[in-house]
Amino acid sequence: MRIAVVGAGALGLYYGAMLQRGGNDVRFLLRRDYEAITARGLTVYSCGGDFHLESVAGFRSPAEIGIVDLVVVGLKAFANDRFAELIGPLVGGGTQVLTLQNGLGNEEALAALFGPERVLGGVAFLCSNRGEPGVVHHLGAGRIQVGTFLPERQAAAERVAALFSNAGVECVAVPDLRRARWEKLVWNIPFNGSCALTLQPVDALLANQRSRPIIREMMVEVITAANAQPLLSPIPETFADQMISFSDGMGPYRPSMLIDRQEGRPLEMSAIFYRPLDAGQAAGVPLPRVATLAALLDCAVTG
Amino acid sequence: MRIAVVGAGALGLYYGAMLQRGGNDVRFLLRRDYEAITARGLTVYSCGGDFHLESVAGFRSPAEIGIVDLVVVGLKAFANDRFAELIGPLVGGGTQVLTLQNGLGNEEALAALFGPERVLGGVAFLCSNRGEPGVVHHLGAGRIQVGTFLPERQAAAERVAALFSNAGVECVAVPDLRRARWEKLVWNIPFNGSCALTLQPVDALLANQRSRPIIREMMVEVITAANAQPLLSPIPETFADQMISFSDGMGPYRPSMLIDRQEGRPLEMSAIFYRPLDAGQAAGVPLPRVATLAALLDCAVTG
Repeated sequence: MRIAVVGAGALGLYYGAMLQRGGNDVRFLLRRDYEAITARGLTVYSCGGDFHLESVAGFRSPAEIGIVDLVVVGLKAFANDRFAELIGPLVGGGTQVLTLQNGLGNEEALAALFGPERVLGGVAFLCSNRGEPGVVHHLGAGRIQVGTFLPERQAAAERVAALFSNAGVECVAVPDLRRARWEKLVWNIPFNGSCALTLQPVDALLANQRSRPIIREMMVEVITAANAQPLLSPIPETFADQMISFSDGMGPYRPSMLIDRQEGRPLEMSAIFYRPLDAGQAAGVPLPRVATLAALLDCAVTG
Repeated sequence: MRIAVVGAGALGLYYGAMLQRGGNDVRFLLRRDYEAITARGLTVYSCGGDFHLESVAGFRSPAEIGIVDLVVVGLKAFANDRFAELIGPLVGGGTQVLTLQNGLGNEEALAALFGPERVLGGVAFLCSNRGEPGVVHHLGAGRIQVGTFLPERQAAAERVAALFSNAGVECVAVPDLRRARWEKLVWNIPFNGSCALTLQPVDALLANQRSRPIIREMMVEVITAANAQPLLSPIPETFADQMISFSDGMGPYRPSMLIDRQEGRPLEMSAIFYRPLDAGQAAGVPLPRVATLAALLDCAVTG
């Protein structure tokens, strides 16, 4: 299968490398890592076993890549205004577009540009960081839940799930992509935001006796907002406790938004905060703790 | 009148200087500014007119100061565990102790050590910063509301109010010190906390379209918690709008907690956050936005 990876950060590089190792024709749209990867290949230091891909197809522009069967989108959501420019040249009649981005609104933007029938979304639970050019560190997890933007096209999600599973990435098709997105937000909203605002890693937020309960209360706010959306089944409040337990095992993990702030990049505020807050507000669900976090983070970053 | 100033930061230096200029025998307990002030006096750059006090009585220890008529306490609240050591040697049979500190719990701590009948509290609305040693900058305001810890001793508040008024400091005696403290918290909680957490001045918090309404919502939370306390009269919600309007005129003011954080000092978390939150909780009033702010600030500072 011919696959293009657009947005080759830690997530795009890791999944692209796995798909290539699994026997696919993977083509990476590269910027920072172009020289290193085209000259020396791509090294994955992974908790599941390190590996090196000697020959990696790196490109500077989507036109050079051409039409593919599947586009895997790993861009930061603040770059979504470049979808047409970066993805358009890759899309032919049979192309499917899978966004592995965080938050809400990514599938909608892709559907508006390329047609809803070819859009899939994946919710990735991946701990990875970029290293030096040509190197990606896979620290833990990696599971993907994939679903289609149009529920009636569920078979396409099954095929993409098989593609990843065959490449050694745990991947399941889910019938309710919207619910999967909100489940991920239950983790992303409190931890990405709080870590980015306080400049502390996950374990510091959980070790502090004042922030630990606030993190859980924010999770419950997100669950309540989620359950006011048209989901196939509600998210139980116990999911917050599962997420806290899960996070207790993460150690000093730095969520992507903390890294973005520390490295001076824009933050994915709309996808992770403003669209979920708007969805809550539209459904009459106030999220006072999350709104406070989002506002203070915005103020801290933009002044 | 013989007056000792304990805690000669921006607030203690400014009010002490005004009281001395007004003809009182003022004795300053000094640490950082001792050499500069005993050698060259104290300079006040004030929006109400600059002045210089050539001869200022600075001391290194409270024992050298001895018993006074009035102790003015300007310590940071995190130094309250030094009350006995710093204030004890100044207190004789007729001594009164006036705390101009922020937040809740200061009068109670002084009353437990020195007897409730001699304790007064003042709520100071003062914009001041320390400059180089021997220099204090008075940027605006300066009004004090003074009350007694024991309501039946109101006459003592009137006398202290007259003392400050005669020295050119606007000062009124109030019948309900608790209410005055909570009114001050309506400003202090959102602005001290949000500015310290985001490292932004007051005008940045108000200019940001997301944080501006959150600031007001936090004010309303504090007003609701205040009105669940035994106040003589409730604080109206319109007080929040007054505080916002007042703050719109402050420009890039840095509240004391922001300066404390930027200069690496401990923050007055208990007096400004934890005691008010506990008082709200004890009265069944949740303060979700304030609790979020306090927890994240604590985590940002302590890790």
